[in-house]
Amino acid sequence: MRIDVLTLFPEMFEGVFGASILGKAKEKGIVSLEAINFRKYSNNKHSTVDDYPYGGGGGMVLKPEPVFAAVEDLHVGAEGKKPRVILMCPQGERFTQRKAEELSREEHLVLICGHYEGYDERIREHLVTDELSIGDYVLTGGEIPAMTVIDSVVRLLPGVLGNETSAVTDSYSTGLLEHPHYTRPPEFRGWTVPDILISGHHAKIEQWRREQSLLRTLKRRPDLLEGAELTAKERKLLQEWSEQAREQAEDKQ
Amino acid sequence: MRIDVLTLFPEMFEGVFGASILGKAKEKGIVSLEAINFRKYSNNKHSTVDDYPYGGGGGMVLKPEPVFAAVEDLHVGAEGKKPRVILMCPQGERFTQRKAEELSREEHLVLICGHYEGYDERIREHLVTDELSIGDYVLTGGEIPAMTVIDSVVRLLPGVLGNETSAVTDSYSTGLLEHPHYTRPPEFRGWTVPDILISGHHAKIEQWRREQSLLRTLKRRPDLLEGAELTAKERKLLQEWSEQAREQAEDKQ
Repeated sequence: MRIDVLTLFPEMFEGVFGASILGKAKEKGIVSLEAINFRKYSNNKHSTVDDYPYGGGGGMVLKPEPVFAAVEDLHVGAEGKKPRVILMCPQGERFTQRKAEELSREEHLVLICGHYEGYDERIREHLVTDELSIGDYVLTGGEIPAMTVIDSVVRLLPGVLGNETSAVTDSYSTGLLEHPHYTRPPEFRGWTVPDILISGHHAKIEQWRREQSLLRTLKRRPDLLEGAELTAKERKLLQEWSEQAREQAEDKQ
Repeated sequence: MRIDVLTLFPEMFEGVFGASILGKAKEKGIVSLEAINFRKYSNNKHSTVDDYPYGGGGGMVLKPEPVFAAVEDLHVGAEGKKPRVILMCPQGERFTQRKAEELSREEHLVLICGHYEGYDERIREHLVTDELSIGDYVLTGGEIPAMTVIDSVVRLLPGVLGNETSAVTDSYSTGLLEHPHYTRPPEFRGWTVPDILISGHHAKIEQWRREQSLLRTLKRRPDLLEGAELTAKERKLLQEWSEQAREQAEDKQ
């Protein structure tokens, strides 16, 4: 897979593209990652890429020419289908794991990062294929959101995650939050590891973990339970817990 | 404000902490940003910070000792109240703009990043004050989420954003998505700027922008309209648009 990022701050990506799992995926040749300064596609002698907004008001607006020129230059000489061109912006579709899976099947992604400026609407209307937002919070630019999308997409590419890491993350596929983890020491400052985990009784450990996972999901993200695959017994358990919680809440009043 | 990040990959933060608005906020002395490798707090000769999970299963688990030691070392000699200790994890509370505003009023934040390992539950129970997740997607570690939180918090600190940038982002405070922006050239590849924006009629421009903002929010994020401050006239307009859209959808069937 090939991923290009258009940004005015390519230096922001150096650490992230070089380290850990993204760095290894790059080294293994599974993905090519480039951060390109689209200022070099400016069509004026001052190398500016933004300009004042028509109609007045504060803020600057990214001009269409350098962004179109940069994206088109990336596709020159490239065979196959056109890249997915993704605008990182707060107005975009909410990024999800499903979208990460969809993007991981593409050959070439181009991510465009604005930086507190607005985008000229013609970029949005005539150049991009997707607009993505990573959440309802305000950031100074699209760079960290682009890193988020890239990290989640690249880890899905075959050969990127080793067995030891994929095993952990596979637990997401259950649709529930993870159960608690414990490691040595068995006692730390008086806080001990639950006996069950040291019992050696694997079936009971699995049952405890599943129940903890259900309990945590019920407490923190009940919305996830709707999409989870649950047995009839587990549904009954959840109902009991919910009733207990309601009774406790009533007792407190 | 002081922000410390505990991570096994401090090099990932170099580019982000040095560039653009975060870099300038650091230079101006508004915020201190440090990425600290908590491997140096390992209590064994191999400098390991993770270990196998009790009860078996794949994946590694971050040990409690180095994480407790690192957080406590950051607070040694520091006056005032204890830091907010934030665990970046998928099971955490969803990060929002409201949470960014809350955190921006703190003196000292410590963000803990796991990296595909799980956390020993005693870290969660006895050390951290907050657990945060930036969204429903799977990432290789907590580093990019930590950058997200830091970026959104630091831009809220007084003196960080200049007038030219805050003006743009202020539009978020209306609770609506932004209206389209246009800049020069007036015609690009046959695509023109809307006449209204070149009319010089400021009241009409403001009205057009407000309507575009409402229309975009209705189409893309109708959930935001519930919390937005709207006039009676605007509510009526939204109702008309909704009815038109419904009629069009019915005509197509």
